[in-house]
Amino acid sequence: MTTLTGQDLRALLKEQALLEETMALAGWDQLTGMPKDASEFRAELQSYLTEKYLGVSTGDQAKALVAYFAGHGDELSADEQALFAKFQEDYERDAAVPADEYIAFNKLTSTAQDAWAEAREQDDYASYAPYLAQLIDLKRRFITYWRKDEATPYDVLLNQFEPGLTVAKLDAVFAEVKAGVVALRERLATEGTEPADDFLRREVAVSDQRAYVWDAAVRLGYDPNKGRLDDTVHPFMQDLNRNDARITTRWSATDFQMAVLGILHEAGHGLFTQNVAPKWDYTPFNKSIAMSIHESQSLFNEVMIGRSEAFLRHDYPIMQQAFHVVLDDVDFETFYKGWMKTQASLIRTEADPLTYPLHIIIRYEIEKAIFNDDIDIATLPALWNAKYEEYLGIRPPSDLTGILQDIHWAGGDFGYFPSYALGHLYAAQFRHEMAKTLDIDSLLAAGNIQPLFDWRKANIWQYGASKTPAQILYAATGEELNPQYWLDLQTQRYLQAYQISDNN
Amino acid sequence: MTTLTGQDLRALLKEQALLEETMALAGWDQLTGMPKDASEFRAELQSYLTEKYLGVSTGDQAKALVAYFAGHGDELSADEQALFAKFQEDYERDAAVPADEYIAFNKLTSTAQDAWAEAREQDDYASYAPYLAQLIDLKRRFITYWRKDEATPYDVLLNQFEPGLTVAKLDAVFAEVKAGVVALRERLATEGTEPADDFLRREVAVSDQRAYVWDAAVRLGYDPNKGRLDDTVHPFMQDLNRNDARITTRWSATDFQMAVLGILHEAGHGLFTQNVAPKWDYTPFNKSIAMSIHESQSLFNEVMIGRSEAFLRHDYPIMQQAFHVVLDDVDFETFYKGWMKTQASLIRTEADPLTYPLHIIIRYEIEKAIFNDDIDIATLPALWNAKYEEYLGIRPPSDLTGILQDIHWAGGDFGYFPSYALGHLYAAQFRHEMAKTLDIDSLLAAGNIQPLFDWRKANIWQYGASKTPAQILYAATGEELNPQYWLDLQTQRYLQAYQISDNN
Repeated sequence: MTTLTGQDLRALLKEQALLEETMALAGWDQLTGMPKDASEFRAELQSYLTEKYLGVSTGDQAKALVAYFAGHGDELSADEQALFAKFQEDYERDAAVPADEYIAFNKLTSTAQDAWAEAREQDDYASYAPYLAQLIDLKRRFITYWRKDEATPYDVLLNQFEPGLTVAKLDAVFAEVKAGVVALRERLATEGTEPADDFLRREVAVSDQRAYVWDAAVRLGYDPNKGRLDDTVHPFMQDLNRNDARITTRWSATDFQMAVLGILHEAGHGLFTQNVAPKWDYTPFNKSIAMSIHESQSLFNEVMIGRSEAFLRHDYPIMQQAFHVVLDDVDFETFYKGWMKTQASLIRTEADPLTYPLHIIIRYEIEKAIFNDDIDIATLPALWNAKYEEYLGIRPPSDLTGILQDIHWAGGDFGYFPSYALGHLYAAQFRHEMAKTLDIDSLLAAGNIQPLFDWRKANIWQYGASKTPAQILYAATGEELNPQYWLDLQTQRYLQAYQISDNN
Repeated sequence: MTTLTGQDLRALLKEQALLEETMALAGWDQLTGMPKDASEFRAELQSYLTEKYLGVSTGDQAKALVAYFAGHGDELSADEQALFAKFQEDYERDAAVPADEYIAFNKLTSTAQDAWAEAREQDDYASYAPYLAQLIDLKRRFITYWRKDEATPYDVLLNQFEPGLTVAKLDAVFAEVKAGVVALRERLATEGTEPADDFLRREVAVSDQRAYVWDAAVRLGYDPNKGRLDDTVHPFMQDLNRNDARITTRWSATDFQMAVLGILHEAGHGLFTQNVAPKWDYTPFNKSIAMSIHESQSLFNEVMIGRSEAFLRHDYPIMQQAFHVVLDDVDFETFYKGWMKTQASLIRTEADPLTYPLHIIIRYEIEKAIFNDDIDIATLPALWNAKYEEYLGIRPPSDLTGILQDIHWAGGDFGYFPSYALGHLYAAQFRHEMAKTLDIDSLLAAGNIQPLFDWRKANIWQYGASKTPAQILYAATGEELNPQYWLDLQTQRYLQAYQISDNN
């Protein structure tokens, strides 16, 4: 066996990273203004780059590195050992699946996504169900290749997105969240005064919206020299590297809240990327593998800050000025209550922070039923609709606003949804810990973001994906995931917005 | 020797094209809004892609293809034979230079460009001269490797950009152009009435400029579904493929002529790219190797159309409306004369169509002196300034607006400048030929572009770079380059604008 070095490992990781950066640029371009007729050429380019990427990540050199350092890990530095562990894990996960099944799965995801899009046009779940069933069958088989000591098949999938997470833990966490949200919503409905929010529909020129929220995002620490803002249909943050974390948004002249919160959200992702330690450049650790932790930082910006009374009290006059006279007759108390209005919705991506976790819990319970209870795929729409009625009190009039709304399953992504909800819970737990040493509200009221920035950089961002979410959470807060912090914060905020004094 | 096929050749050319497309996207992005701090990461990415590209274009498979098809050309289709001839020519040109000298040259161009930028900041030619001298020495040596039967060393360089062009031919052409322009300028100065053009400095909102000229570019045939318009410092067209030909511009609120003519120019390049025959996709022939022909098409849009009285008479009311009241008090006759005002300038890129060729002729004569007469590099600024005084009647107050203005030489590009002037001459010759079958002015006055579009597509665009400029010119016009058409057109236009009746 040839002797290999840490430099050989780093060289291969760097080539992977450079190809990823190239694909990210091509992908960003495609979604932000690539000429319409260029689609086929772009598909050809991405297919070429993907092929090159697979050649690097599963080729002879990759194989040799895995074989060599499995027995010579002590020849690597501590950082390189961590990188190798990640590399080996990915390599073995991919190598465990026979190549022909892997290719079949990838082809199927492409076909299934087309079938999903077609089913949406026709509002016809039945036409898409056979593809979904095939995807699930293949995924079930992959689980048998991957499964080690996980308690249930679905644990295997959860573990891929959130290392160490189990159905047992998540059942307990989600039960607590669900009970808390349902109880709080009941209380708001019976004891509360529903805020007026009609002024959120007033027309505000997109250029005025842009002027306010770009400035706000930058004041919250997003570095404009390491990013940019473009228009798109489905907003996202695209990280090319730590000095190039681009954000996108969509605009509506009659819904400025969407762009304000959306841009704060994406800028939160950008903050994370911009502040990963330079030592992880050109490695997988500068990327958002730890998806739930990344989401906790976008949500920290959007929810912890963007829905905090102290922050909004500071920013409201700035927003009023940017929007010219549009909000001049709305006082801050009215504005804040309207900003916080909560309402059950059928569409996950339009949900407010209080109801959002219920959307995720529904998907989680269905995924569990699919992989652990072998539920009949034909019955999924009925199950979906029943759960929406039970948890949120609304029933989709059709599958279009029900089970057909998300692309994830058609793309073969199962076990991914929980990360979204975990991001909410992590954000609140970080905030609770931060509040032990920082007077968050006073700082936000004074427009002094730096201490919050420094805390997040020191405890979260610098690590990139070099630690698991559980490791980062425990190191930063001294305890495991505790959803009570999130419930406490939401309860306090919504009782206030709905004018219920919390004496009982 | 292994048997190779046309498919093998096409596969390698396709990989080259895909890597070129990737580098083009990364380059475009860098110049149109990439975050400021991302420069180093982008340099690393481009360097990686360049290395991959060289690996493909000079690797074992490239070598094998050249060796095999040198003796088996008859196994290729006619199109493939043309592709192979181009591939072989490029390969042999690169292979003729020892690898270490090639690398040294590339490194030197990078250092020399930094030295050039530094020299510009200090207005200090002397600090840059040693790098320029080294570059020229290396280029002289390369010429000895490349030279076959060319009459002079400089012919070798000319031939690389414009196959078949010689110093002897170009001396004759440029002598005619120079004499004609000098005589015409003399006549305008003594007999003409200089037009007023102060209204060209009136303030017009960039959004109004954009509204007019984007619409005009599209009316001239630029397909907005196969392109886009972005802001940049130095305008360019970037072709990723025939369905993605992006243009860029710069804007000044007090110089709308700059953006109007600039965008028509870049859209002319875009027209060419968008209309290359699909059979040249993923080959070097979909690119602008034939640089002077490409330039003739940008200039056809900018000068042949964009300075034509008939076109402007049709478009002026549209422009007036787009610019709101700004030009309401300027009648068309006044507008057109002002639009055509000619004035000697020190900076090539700011020159009008009449004086532009003189800027090129000066550079051509100096390049010839460098490579054919071994002139002392230290004396170049004096030579430069003397020629500006002699041909244009103005003398640069410093090298900043003199010999230090262009980056080309610092980048190692010698023999490239003449293509710019040839573009002007070709454009006029094409126009002259077109006028034999089309009533160009009536068509432009009626806003009917289609016949001009069809003529250019059939005679020029469809071929991409599969034919040499000389081949395209001869096939389209039935004669070799004849600068008289350009001189005749300019004479007619400028005499009119300067109100000289052409009876003598």
